[in-house]
Amino acid sequence: MAWLRRRRTVPAPQADAGRLAIIAGAGALPVMLAEANPDAYCLAFEGNDCDLPEASLTRYRYEKLGSVFTSLRAEGVTRIVMAGGIARPKLDMTQLDLTVMSLAPRIVKAMGTGRDDALLRLVISVFEDQGFAVVGAHDLLPHLTAPSGVLVGTALSKYGRADAERGRAILGALAPLDVTQGCVVAGGLCLGIETVQGTDAMLRFVADTPDRLRRGKGVLCKLPKAGQDLRVDMPAIGPETVRSAAAAGLEGIVIASGKVLLIERDVLIALADDLGVKIVAVEM
Amino acid sequence: MAWLRRRRTVPAPQADAGRLAIIAGAGALPVMLAEANPDAYCLAFEGNDCDLPEASLTRYRYEKLGSVFTSLRAEGVTRIVMAGGIARPKLDMTQLDLTVMSLAPRIVKAMGTGRDDALLRLVISVFEDQGFAVVGAHDLLPHLTAPSGVLVGTALSKYGRADAERGRAILGALAPLDVTQGCVVAGGLCLGIETVQGTDAMLRFVADTPDRLRRGKGVLCKLPKAGQDLRVDMPAIGPETVRSAAAAGLEGIVIASGKVLLIERDVLIALADDLGVKIVAVEM
Repeated sequence: MAWLRRRRTVPAPQADAGRLAIIAGAGALPVMLAEANPDAYCLAFEGNDCDLPEASLTRYRYEKLGSVFTSLRAEGVTRIVMAGGIARPKLDMTQLDLTVMSLAPRIVKAMGTGRDDALLRLVISVFEDQGFAVVGAHDLLPHLTAPSGVLVGTALSKYGRADAERGRAILGALAPLDVTQGCVVAGGLCLGIETVQGTDAMLRFVADTPDRLRRGKGVLCKLPKAGQDLRVDMPAIGPETVRSAAAAGLEGIVIASGKVLLIERDVLIALADDLGVKIVAVEM
Repeated sequence: MAWLRRRRTVPAPQADAGRLAIIAGAGALPVMLAEANPDAYCLAFEGNDCDLPEASLTRYRYEKLGSVFTSLRAEGVTRIVMAGGIARPKLDMTQLDLTVMSLAPRIVKAMGTGRDDALLRLVISVFEDQGFAVVGAHDLLPHLTAPSGVLVGTALSKYGRADAERGRAILGALAPLDVTQGCVVAGGLCLGIETVQGTDAMLRFVADTPDRLRRGKGVLCKLPKAGQDLRVDMPAIGPETVRSAAAAGLEGIVIASGKVLLIERDVLIALADDLGVKIVAVEM
């Protein structure tokens, strides 16, 4: 059973252990990490959206991963953080360097699973094999997660708590399959399970639910998968999540304490307060 | 009454098994059952859509369930089939008869679970307690399900088979929670999991998936939940499912042999053939 699978113990990052590199994807998180770590070496892969100024980062190609390792060492980097949305790589097979070619069997195997976590675990192990420590954004910016308890509004209603329990059960059942980090339950009925389109798309779908199928307001549960390596893939909510949750008529959002990133935390909290969307963090 | 005259002149099928009552909900299935069983006593609950002519059926109120049992016995009914979409009852608590009042604790408990199967299992046991046999539409219309193998088109591609396997695993993981009978997987990625809005709504959601998140065509898996009582709640596909699957760009639909109803079977098969949507039945 999923909840019996114990997460591998992740060694605590040593904050002053050496220079940090930020492998930056789309969204606000890489920007926040770069602001908090002005000495960091920032890089992004070709073709991937990135909100950091291009002048502040170096672009690499997936096909030439060997050059990334060379540069990181030359820059004195010992620690890596991967943050933001990263597009699934489309590799030009005629351009692979020796590093990538030697990894090809493992890449093909990981991609063939259709599971993000398999690919991301491979990426971590590749950087670790090269001698780099891989740390999580939540390790570097701990204030970006929520402690256990009510973050916005009041405690959930009795119905909200029951819906949250059912949401946790649904996510728990799916955790071993690496399908989802989010679902919506209202009045005991599941109104949406997040798939590759992401949380906001799922919430828009929920908002379109005919009234006759709605019972009560409901909650969004956003929780990491059991065994999920938070260093490369961490659930996140942001202002857009709050807006979509309000539009879907939800009572609130339930997140895992310490394990869900709060993107634009201050904006998010103010907006949730304004829109009357509760945010509650639970232990898990 | 025309109805009673017909009863006298048309020999009842399976006469030795006793007269059949059809508890009719929305959709084509009750109509097909009534056509195949012209001797059947047809009833529907107030407020529930039903495609049978009103003149051919008797309406009852959920609050007065006792009168249903009385009528069924007076009509010589020994077997019940429940078919078609039935809206979740909204009870007027001031109008309950003794039968419903005596069931109230079990009804409240079943509805509180938020699980359709709990409510439907209760309905079955109530009719069984009253001495009626509850049969499934698939028992009465066995040609409405598919035998194992290819029903339309050719066998699934290698990718389609892998997607079907993953879809089965996803539905299997959720089965104990009574959440869903359907999901779409394409290139190993889950693009949609059916929730209370139904299969067509899920397929429209899948059709809106941005191209960058699509890998391959994918399949819809439509399978009963493990332990699902097919007598009251049976997965079904119909022409609309095929149309939606085609609009979502899917390779095909995978159903469980003998356990998924084919609504308007001939139309469905012709349409799937026209639109190039494979339909394959698998053992489970």
